[in-house]
Amino acid sequence: MGQAVESDLVERLLDGEHRALARVITKIESQSPGYRDIVSEIHAHTGHASVVGITGSPGAGKSTLVDKLAKFYRDQGETVGVIAVDPSSPYTGGAVLGDRIRMASNVGDMDVFFRSMSARGQLGGLSTATADAVKALDAFGKDRIIIETVGAGQNEVDVVKTADTVVVLVQPGSGDDVQMLKAGILEIGDVFVVNKADMEGASRTVAELEEMIHLRDDPRAKLDMGHHGAEAMGDHHGHGEHTDDDQDDEPEPDPVWTPQVVETIATTGEGIDELVETLSDHYTYLAESGELDEKARQRAAEEIRQLLRSDVNRLLERELDDRGGIDDFASAVVDKETDPYAVTEDVLEPLRECLEDRDD
Amino acid sequence: MGQAVESDLVERLLDGEHRALARVITKIESQSPGYRDIVSEIHAHTGHASVVGITGSPGAGKSTLVDKLAKFYRDQGETVGVIAVDPSSPYTGGAVLGDRIRMASNVGDMDVFFRSMSARGQLGGLSTATADAVKALDAFGKDRIIIETVGAGQNEVDVVKTADTVVVLVQPGSGDDVQMLKAGILEIGDVFVVNKADMEGASRTVAELEEMIHLRDDPRAKLDMGHHGAEAMGDHHGHGEHTDDDQDDEPEPDPVWTPQVVETIATTGEGIDELVETLSDHYTYLAESGELDEKARQRAAEEIRQLLRSDVNRLLERELDDRGGIDDFASAVVDKETDPYAVTEDVLEPLRECLEDRDD
Repeated sequence: MGQAVESDLVERLLDGEHRALARVITKIESQSPGYRDIVSEIHAHTGHASVVGITGSPGAGKSTLVDKLAKFYRDQGETVGVIAVDPSSPYTGGAVLGDRIRMASNVGDMDVFFRSMSARGQLGGLSTATADAVKALDAFGKDRIIIETVGAGQNEVDVVKTADTVVVLVQPGSGDDVQMLKAGILEIGDVFVVNKADMEGASRTVAELEEMIHLRDDPRAKLDMGHHGAEAMGDHHGHGEHTDDDQDDEPEPDPVWTPQVVETIATTGEGIDELVETLSDHYTYLAESGELDEKARQRAAEEIRQLLRSDVNRLLERELDDRGGIDDFASAVVDKETDPYAVTEDVLEPLRECLEDRDD
Repeated sequence: MGQAVESDLVERLLDGEHRALARVITKIESQSPGYRDIVSEIHAHTGHASVVGITGSPGAGKSTLVDKLAKFYRDQGETVGVIAVDPSSPYTGGAVLGDRIRMASNVGDMDVFFRSMSARGQLGGLSTATADAVKALDAFGKDRIIIETVGAGQNEVDVVKTADTVVVLVQPGSGDDVQMLKAGILEIGDVFVVNKADMEGASRTVAELEEMIHLRDDPRAKLDMGHHGAEAMGDHHGHGEHTDDDQDDEPEPDPVWTPQVVETIATTGEGIDELVETLSDHYTYLAESGELDEKARQRAAEEIRQLLRSDVNRLLERELDDRGGIDDFASAVVDKETDPYAVTEDVLEPLRECLEDRDD
């Protein structure tokens, strides 16, 4: 056990051993001793995969769409890793069954590596764990990584934001989806997929989405409206092609990405090729505009901030315990012997002094 | 300026000067220098008011209900303070106009002190500011304090939890409300008010709420169901009276509070007396069961935790800045010179050492 085994594990992962990959992700998820060293070691081998986050209400057809997307990439000869994150339940079905590696039902080899992750630990911990698992898949050598989650709250938004491209899946005619969109998902969607496009109300949902996209309170959207709002409004099934017929004097790439709406029927595979093309367009946009690098920097900053926050909170909890526990402080506050600001000052004073001493 | 003026301000607040109260709350809201000392000083004078939190979707009639409730208490000779918190917008209407003190429209004196607060600062900051403003009103001598907020997310839940009694306002037949209830509001509501009870669908909303209350996944609710589920289900308009006809051998007070549903028409004032009675029942329950003290301790612990978190995060941000800023660290991570865990370890190491040295 110990150091030797851990570094062996990383080597086996880098060598493409799926069991090592699975073990590393388990360690990340359960925050096993030594998992941080593993992720640190892995980090240097990342940065090659393109990462797509897919979110949407339960029943919108996420799993089916993800399976079809994985198959499409696989048929192109690319390797695929999928992480399904369920922030609302402490355990996923797979976790309870003890076997959380499954192969995508329609793919006959291990080049689609599927893994579910459950919502352990505190707020924010899940997006860190997701980002770490993505690193494991990336270092392993997966070309395409798909993060799948239910789009409901801030937690899910944080999870899906660890991807380069965010896909929001919408089911036609469901009021839930409008709620979800209002709740901040609209702002983070790069591509909207109206799945089950053969359902009644699909074209209305497409129209509503496009109107919301073009009206959203975003300076980039307004800029875009000014440039070619007319054809954008007419182009109801656009997928990233910008036909600037009236703007031939501006041949440079569009400086902003207008979220695209794609219709699919995941069960039959209809529209998957168009979705893949749109995802590819978005990735090209990210790379050419420099946003890909900028996003990577922002993600790194966010990862650092999350880790600092959770680690320092742990330090504080231990410090509170060493001083008799939070309950004693709370009782003293209720009894008017002290107050929350005085307690905070008291607990943090040594930290402040310590940092100031270092600065001298 | 300085120390003398601040302590004068606290004295004037304790003497019942409304302008001093308004200034203190402004200082709390804007986190002006010295506001912490003020809240610390005030803390010893708190603990006399009863605090009700009222939440509900926009349009459910919160303002009207709060005005009527304030008038009712005022007519009983009690003094009232109202804080309206809007976590979704950075500024409230009052904030923009520069004058955020208004008198409740239907009350002719300053014994109803109304104040709106906007969502400044980071997550969690708003519930701390609300708790501090409540302390100011309490120390001032207000008998009744009402916190009014829009019930939509975690922020609002945190705000409303600073109250002794949580009232959730529901508008008949609106799908929004069911969504809101699902989003965790149901768990924190002590009293549910179906306002606009003359609207179509009101009795169905009442029935739905009562079913949700009795089915909710709460050991206390299940316990209660077991004891007198039958009459509870029949008592559709109950307001805290527990008629244990079949349990005459158990005369002691009910050990749990079953959330009550009250119907009101705030515009006409109908049902306000029943609501006041239910609020009074809940307060009696809290006091007799010991939950009032327990809640106070939990709130104190939460206030300490929030302050520790935000203060330590500020310390960390300064430490990061001293070391060249988060952007440099993020770039180094992207360039694979380091990784988030190594950065975190590096930044926190002095803090760890410092705390360990103190323990020796």
